[in-house]
Amino acid sequence: MSTPRAASISGFPEWLPSERIVELAVLDTARSIFELHGFASIETRSVEPLSELLRKGEIDKEVYVLRRLHAAPTEADPGLGLHFDLTVPLARYVLANAGHLDFPFRRYQIQKVWRGERPQEGRSREFTQADIDIVDRTDLAFHHEVEMAVVMSSLLAALPIPPAVIHVSNRKLAEGFYRAIGAPDPAAVLQVIDKLDKIGPEATARMLVEGAGLPAKAADQCLELASICSADASFAERVGALGVGSALLEEGITELAAVIEGVNAQRPGSVVADLRIARGLDYYTGTVYETVLVGHERVGSIASGGRYDTLASDTKTTYPGVGISLGVTRLVTVLLNRELVSASRSVPSVVLVAVNDESSRPDSDRIAAKLRARGIATEVAPRADRFGKQIRYADRRGIPYVWFPGAPEPVKDIRSGVQVVADPDDWCPLPQDMRPQVIRADSVTQTGPR
Amino acid sequence: MSTPRAASISGFPEWLPSERIVELAVLDTARSIFELHGFASIETRSVEPLSELLRKGEIDKEVYVLRRLHAAPTEADPGLGLHFDLTVPLARYVLANAGHLDFPFRRYQIQKVWRGERPQEGRSREFTQADIDIVDRTDLAFHHEVEMAVVMSSLLAALPIPPAVIHVSNRKLAEGFYRAIGAPDPAAVLQVIDKLDKIGPEATARMLVEGAGLPAKAADQCLELASICSADASFAERVGALGVGSALLEEGITELAAVIEGVNAQRPGSVVADLRIARGLDYYTGTVYETVLVGHERVGSIASGGRYDTLASDTKTTYPGVGISLGVTRLVTVLLNRELVSASRSVPSVVLVAVNDESSRPDSDRIAAKLRARGIATEVAPRADRFGKQIRYADRRGIPYVWFPGAPEPVKDIRSGVQVVADPDDWCPLPQDMRPQVIRADSVTQTGPR
Repeated sequence: MSTPRAASISGFPEWLPSERIVELAVLDTARSIFELHGFASIETRSVEPLSELLRKGEIDKEVYVLRRLHAAPTEADPGLGLHFDLTVPLARYVLANAGHLDFPFRRYQIQKVWRGERPQEGRSREFTQADIDIVDRTDLAFHHEVEMAVVMSSLLAALPIPPAVIHVSNRKLAEGFYRAIGAPDPAAVLQVIDKLDKIGPEATARMLVEGAGLPAKAADQCLELASICSADASFAERVGALGVGSALLEEGITELAAVIEGVNAQRPGSVVADLRIARGLDYYTGTVYETVLVGHERVGSIASGGRYDTLASDTKTTYPGVGISLGVTRLVTVLLNRELVSASRSVPSVVLVAVNDESSRPDSDRIAAKLRARGIATEVAPRADRFGKQIRYADRRGIPYVWFPGAPEPVKDIRSGVQVVADPDDWCPLPQDMRPQVIRADSVTQTGPR
Repeated sequence: MSTPRAASISGFPEWLPSERIVELAVLDTARSIFELHGFASIETRSVEPLSELLRKGEIDKEVYVLRRLHAAPTEADPGLGLHFDLTVPLARYVLANAGHLDFPFRRYQIQKVWRGERPQEGRSREFTQADIDIVDRTDLAFHHEVEMAVVMSSLLAALPIPPAVIHVSNRKLAEGFYRAIGAPDPAAVLQVIDKLDKIGPEATARMLVEGAGLPAKAADQCLELASICSADASFAERVGALGVGSALLEEGITELAAVIEGVNAQRPGSVVADLRIARGLDYYTGTVYETVLVGHERVGSIASGGRYDTLASDTKTTYPGVGISLGVTRLVTVLLNRELVSASRSVPSVVLVAVNDESSRPDSDRIAAKLRARGIATEVAPRADRFGKQIRYADRRGIPYVWFPGAPEPVKDIRSGVQVVADPDDWCPLPQDMRPQVIRADSVTQTGPR
């Protein structure tokens, strides 16, 4: 059915089976942590009306538009595009189903999204996100802004990855400060500050003056604010030392201190206050989060989000929300490209049952069925080759055990060569062999010679 | 971020959280059964080059074409479309990665696919498939054609669904028969026979004569062949009684008998030989499978597939394959629309930890953390309302237990009202409460009054 024009398409990553095991480990851990915290799974359709995708001028997201190949010339254009995040679809889902949901609505959503951006490391055109959000009606309790960081920190700690730190800021703090120093357009300041890491402080100062209309002194104050970072609530004193005051700024400081202290009480060292975090154009109104993989800062944030006072609204009700999103594909790409982890084998199989000759294949099938009934993933050798060749079949895939049918029946650990006589109704592999393991490269190093 | 223009889009189904639990049960069971049989997970990108999607004239699949909204007018059209199945992408993946795969390559793939067809029950424009395939180089052993039906039958038996029967036929049998009775174009006959269920025998006979160029007697013979169905190998005698013979026909009969007997030896009663099964235009060359959900035949096959002698090929190598695909969305739609199953609750949470007052929320958080550390999904009440209201929060979502912080600490089963004093470091819920259960409607009926 296919010819060899099989080149990869830039920005649409695919994994080999052993790499997919690493991705599955991330996905399974995310789901497990989210469910432990009481988030319910939903999926939304992959498409939304273009009108919905392009609201609030999200044209930078580079939407993919769909068209049916055989659409009749007279057929009204349905105007559908692939979703570029899981937040716009969540807002639409909440409005469409509000009468059937219980609020606060706690949901997780793990799906692919698409953006036609220029591909680079950490940025694909098709990628998977793992989002959690809590959405309420009219009011959303502030403690959920603490909770988001606690859940994401628990997930990051459970993953086979380098240490990760969640950097937190607050839109009220930033907007209050910018207004107090006379910024004519606080949103424009935020957008410039968002580029600080990329373009450096000098170019940022210039853009704050020329683009965002700030006096030179105010631009310097913005850079000073953005330089404040602390692992505890001491950031508040440093903001105070800048001599700028407003009610909104104070509210933002109080909220940010509460998030830092609240999260650190539950998960010490997992968050820092970092006033450089801006989150660009997104319409956040309170806490904002970005997450740095220590030693791999250049790939960008691996988990981002924040609070929206108006995630969605209809004529009767406003739905505030807070959420955070793990960039699964970005994270897995870093783990694999930089060889930080590897899978112990490329298949789920624990056991290969050998076949003595084709006429006795049913005997091998019966042994396999008994092992599977006890939860042990098992393959039967595809060909009744000589045993050396059947063992190589297992070895190439990393299958740890080969079972030889007969009476008595030996099972061999082909890594150690140790062979025991066993009964498929009660034999057990080593517990760590039951599933493929994802191994961190640095943990392998630790077991090497000193 | 969203306004109430939130109507559903026909053909793009979405589930409420409790419905999603049913879908997750199907997906989890499929993955578990596939991995028990040694199939490795892969995913392929959602897009393929249009040239690849439209090979072999698959225009009936109604491809969705993609375009970047902001593509420059001069930008070369990338010519990408969303995949309409997981077989075309598998063929491309095997060719692209042949040097990195071990053959026979056993993979499962659970992904969404898209077809711009007219939506109806059992037919969506976006839907999820769960596929297994075995692909080898040059030769693929016949016993894998038995194995496919064994694995799918194991999966169907593990799902919370009505009984399902896999109907099997064989392309060699059909083609050998059609050639022997003088059909000028056996493929055209197959396509007509594929419509038999929809249009009835009289219209089929007419189309066989007028469209496929058969003499009237040969058309009758085709209908007689298509009427043959048996739960064992006795179909062979009925084919023989039609008095038609050829080497290809004999080979098909032998293979089909081997599949029926081989599968029934491992999973009695799970397959029937059914010579009406044609599988339309698809390029199968041996065994073909369709699956009927007993009592719900009208929704169409819920699991289909077959053998391809040439799944893929390049200048050096031919890759034969055999596969079968569970139509997850079709199956889940039937289960939900016909109320055949329901979920025991709408959230993963086993326990709601109550909050005495906002100042003691950290105490409730600590209890929740202890329960979660022991694998018990737990939420903390979002508001320190009076306890009656907090219990209603749990009740509305189906959360079975409410934990009241204090000393001593009682936990209440809110279904029975039974309350016990417990320690979050060793309390356990009933085992069946650990996860939401998917309950068959007929099992509920059995517990009703006689």
